Amino acid sequence: MDLSQLIAVARGGEPADLVLRNARLVDVLSPDIRTTDIAVAGTAVAGVGRGYRGRETVDLKGRYVCPGFIDAHVHLESGLVRPREFARAAVPRGVTTVVADPHEIANVAGAAGIRFLLRDTARAPLQVFVNVPSCVPATRLATSGAAVSAADFGPLFSDPRVLGLGEVMDFRGVVSGAPRVLAAIAAARGRPVDGHCPGLGGLELNAYVAAGIGSDHECASVGEAREKLRLGMTIFVREGSAARNLSALLPLATPHTERRLCFCTDDRQPADLLEEGSIDFLVRRAVAGGVPPLTAIRMATLNPAEHFRLADRGAVAPGRRADLVVFGDLGDVRPELVYSGGVLAARDGAPAGPAWEEEIAEADPEVRDTVRVDWARMDLRIPATGSRMRVIGIVPDQINTGSLVVAPLVLDGIAVADPDRDLLKIAVIERHGASGRTALGFVKGMGLKEGAIAGTVAHDHHNLIVVGADDASMETAARAAAAGGGGLAAARGETVLAVLPLPIAGLMSGEPIERVREGVRSLAVAARALGSRLRDPFMTMSFLGLEVVPALKLTDLGLVDVEAQAIVPLFAEK
Amino acid sequence: MDLSQLIAVARGGEPADLVLRNARLVDVLSPDIRTTDIAVAGTAVAGVGRGYRGRETVDLKGRYVCPGFIDAHVHLESGLVRPREFARAAVPRGVTTVVADPHEIANVAGAAGIRFLLRDTARAPLQVFVNVPSCVPATRLATSGAAVSAADFGPLFSDPRVLGLGEVMDFRGVVSGAPRVLAAIAAARGRPVDGHCPGLGGLELNAYVAAGIGSDHECASVGEAREKLRLGMTIFVREGSAARNLSALLPLATPHTERRLCFCTDDRQPADLLEEGSIDFLVRRAVAGGVPPLTAIRMATLNPAEHFRLADRGAVAPGRRADLVVFGDLGDVRPELVYSGGVLAARDGAPAGPAWEEEIAEADPEVRDTVRVDWARMDLRIPATGSRMRVIGIVPDQINTGSLVVAPLVLDGIAVADPDRDLLKIAVIERHGASGRTALGFVKGMGLKEGAIAGTVAHDHHNLIVVGADDASMETAARAAAAGGGGLAAARGETVLAVLPLPIAGLMSGEPIERVREGVRSLAVAARALGSRLRDPFMTMSFLGLEVVPALKLTDLGLVDVEAQAIVPLFAEK
Repeated sequence: MDLSQLIAVARGGEPADLVLRNARLVDVLSPDIRTTDIAVAGTAVAGVGRGYRGRETVDLKGRYVCPGFIDAHVHLESGLVRPREFARAAVPRGVTTVVADPHEIANVAGAAGIRFLLRDTARAPLQVFVNVPSCVPATRLATSGAAVSAADFGPLFSDPRVLGLGEVMDFRGVVSGAPRVLAAIAAARGRPVDGHCPGLGGLELNAYVAAGIGSDHECASVGEAREKLRLGMTIFVREGSAARNLSALLPLATPHTERRLCFCTDDRQPADLLEEGSIDFLVRRAVAGGVPPLTAIRMATLNPAEHFRLADRGAVAPGRRADLVVFGDLGDVRPELVYSGGVLAARDGAPAGPAWEEEIAEADPEVRDTVRVDWARMDLRIPATGSRMRVIGIVPDQINTGSLVVAPLVLDGIAVADPDRDLLKIAVIERHGASGRTALGFVKGMGLKEGAIAGTVAHDHHNLIVVGADDASMETAARAAAAGGGGLAAARGETVLAVLPLPIAGLMSGEPIERVREGVRSLAVAARALGSRLRDPFMTMSFLGLEVVPALKLTDLGLVDVEAQAIVPLFAEK
Repeated sequence: MDLSQLIAVARGGEPADLVLRNARLVDVLSPDIRTTDIAVAGTAVAGVGRGYRGRETVDLKGRYVCPGFIDAHVHLESGLVRPREFARAAVPRGVTTVVADPHEIANVAGAAGIRFLLRDTARAPLQVFVNVPSCVPATRLATSGAAVSAADFGPLFSDPRVLGLGEVMDFRGVVSGAPRVLAAIAAARGRPVDGHCPGLGGLELNAYVAAGIGSDHECASVGEAREKLRLGMTIFVREGSAARNLSALLPLATPHTERRLCFCTDDRQPADLLEEGSIDFLVRRAVAGGVPPLTAIRMATLNPAEHFRLADRGAVAPGRRADLVVFGDLGDVRPELVYSGGVLAARDGAPAGPAWEEEIAEADPEVRDTVRVDWARMDLRIPATGSRMRVIGIVPDQINTGSLVVAPLVLDGIAVADPDRDLLKIAVIERHGASGRTALGFVKGMGLKEGAIAGTVAHDHHNLIVVGADDASMETAARAAAAGGGGLAAARGETVLAVLPLPIAGLMSGEPIERVREGVRSLAVAARALGSRLRDPFMTMSFLGLEVVPALKLTDLGLVDVEAQAIVPLFAEK
């Protein structure tokens, strides 16, 4: 629709495509709630007020209408489904826009992975914007499948759906002025740059902000968030599957201080997406926690739109996108109708409308068959060359770990797992270039009494990671996970107990999310049968290779002392 | 200063250039007021907090510091001084950034006039951004010196100091979908577009906003402003020399609704700038009127920065420009020190620091000698061809006029001024192309008993405008105003009583603002001696030619019925 036609509808000269009558409009702008009509022309709101005629009219009979929700920061890959399928889960929750940081797929497939994500959602009712991942690979202490450097930014930034730079996780590098990360920030000059700096404060935080980083989604307390707000950061209040900060930050969500607060999910797994929801869940939780509904809805709409300079959305107003969420109860926001760009996209929590009927093309070749392992060179045995070894200590429900020093159990000169002490073997097998490189170590806290679990999801390098009680089970699990382009698997001996194929980049399924949720459940049942009492052993395992989060991690290059940012030997001195 | 050096200062690794100690910081971000230190490195704030060393240290002993003020919309030309000199008046008032709409100089000199304004302020302590005037010429019913069309936008938009499109005054054209104005808006796509739609409401306002227009500074009532806020406009609360809306709009300036409100001056004359001030005056007036100081200061800083996406200012925070205003009393904000880009630029209300010592180059040739009149062809006589004539009716202190129908005073077949009825002759003489074109009419309400006043300031076309009681005085005043490249003048018979030369585009003086203020005073004294009781007859006269503001105006092409947007004859049908 051209501008003159939109104007003609807006002034009442031509009928609207759709008029929503008797809407109780949640006006995040003035702000205010009032009963009025909303006229839609093409993809945009033409007018708000009485007196519009429409080709189609829906009488909302006093139901509320608010702008479509915006997820300020999400890794779509955590949904374990392809981006188009993520949309099918998010849109019925009222989410019509996300700012995605595709650093998982970028670590596997580089810029080609980012382009796949953009193409896969090009015509989806979920508007997917991208912040280019800033740290791919995260460090030199792991082998990724691809790198994304400042040289890649130019072509990516020419896409109007690419906004700026994704979370700058290397906050130590920023504070110390490391050239590589400063070059990335400089290349994004004038664009939004997302941050990631858990616990940073004082002069170091000043340095991080001075570099031009505008947001943080890692705040765990009001004090931390307030310090960051004061220095100019926008705070994304996160409630993901792994990390949940909403309750802790609610005291900041007042009409007085809400302006620079947004909601984000960061990581949401299939079951959480389907059962709790997405940003709608955060809105409900906030309101249930005492946040005024208008404040909570602003944090889900206008605030992220303003932060990311998405002037065409975030409010229900003339000329803005007709992304509209209809619901019945301000105290318990549950989307009944969701319009995306003026078109009905969901009804009563389920996808609806023509957009979902489109045939989905097969995923791009660049993101298929990405698992390349040289099985012949894999050797899981650990010769015992010392009497004390460094062991990764799991902290339940956290992604940081302890660094323990433990005596090995040695059989015939080989250090082996000792399930009685909850001491399991961990292997990270390089899976991008079939180098045959395998790093080995031990982990405490996984709780398997027998068998093994494995996966090609291992942040951020996404090599093949395996934890197990014996080498045979580990090899079975690893092969099952790797088969068919990647996935997650549990095994006992030579028996595969459960497997969830993730053939897209080894990170995502091509199946419907409901089926993926069942696959995840089967894996959890298997892991439990093997003895783990963790809430989600696969997610816990997926962070055991993340060499930027303290304290001890394992990559394909070996054990990483995160504070020292150095590879350390398994067997400690002394 | 490069980024790594700024970061080094921010983390405390290197000394700052300047540390302001014991500042009571007006933190518009969190928001909050607290005592802290501010470290400056180069042009930017490096850090906010305790623990910084500086090459220079100033102990503020608890004085307040807030961000530099931003004037969201101003026509610099109204200061009657060149832009660099306007800066000398504005910066001591705490104004460090303005968004200028140079539509006066553009009507005289086109894009070259805009470039002069940018060049003249390129190194000034006042950061001047430009919104390209959208309506030059305003209509086809007057002759301007130049046109600015969508084709000019490209080169202008490539200047980082050019933000978007200036006030779209042709709101009727927008609402009706007129191609010329829609083309201008389309050419500015993705950039801020300022509005101007006094009194517009209902579906027409929806149409205006749907076109993509994001602000309005013409609201005269809370009701009007609230309707515009609801539809997504940012409201610039204006307190100019001519139009003053601050008191009327103060009820909207609450912490709850302030977010989308900014301050602007629109038009400020020399005396008002020097005596009342600029944005500082609006802050004081707002606070005196009961607005919380933090709210008022946000409207003067963070809000316009966010509206115009000037992410590098609007708050005192790491990485943002060190535009800082130091003052002693939150209830009566009077800037004591003003830093612009980290450098002291004013002290105790007067310019200070090295920036003002720079030699000022002569104004560009394109904006000098712009007054070209063919005096030989000027004829001020009005043959009386009817018994009823249309007369412009002045409304004191307003720029709109009435349209009266009055019997002429006829002597020897010639309609002449009749000061006894306060009926004066008005002439608009084309002065850009020496066409000799002169339009004549009558005006009621100016109050001159004798003599004449004239000027080359006549919105928006800025032809030579003259109002007088007799033709000889009118010609004397006109010639005096036109001499030397333009100006304002008052005359009686063949005697020039007062003259203020405005040789830059016929709009601005090259002299210091204090001297220009004296010149304006002399003109006012002269006009008063001639009998006018208006507060500012020259300003009133300057709007008598503005054919876009109701009801009856005179341009060089004749009398304009503004509602009908048509030239009408002086002598009315009966």
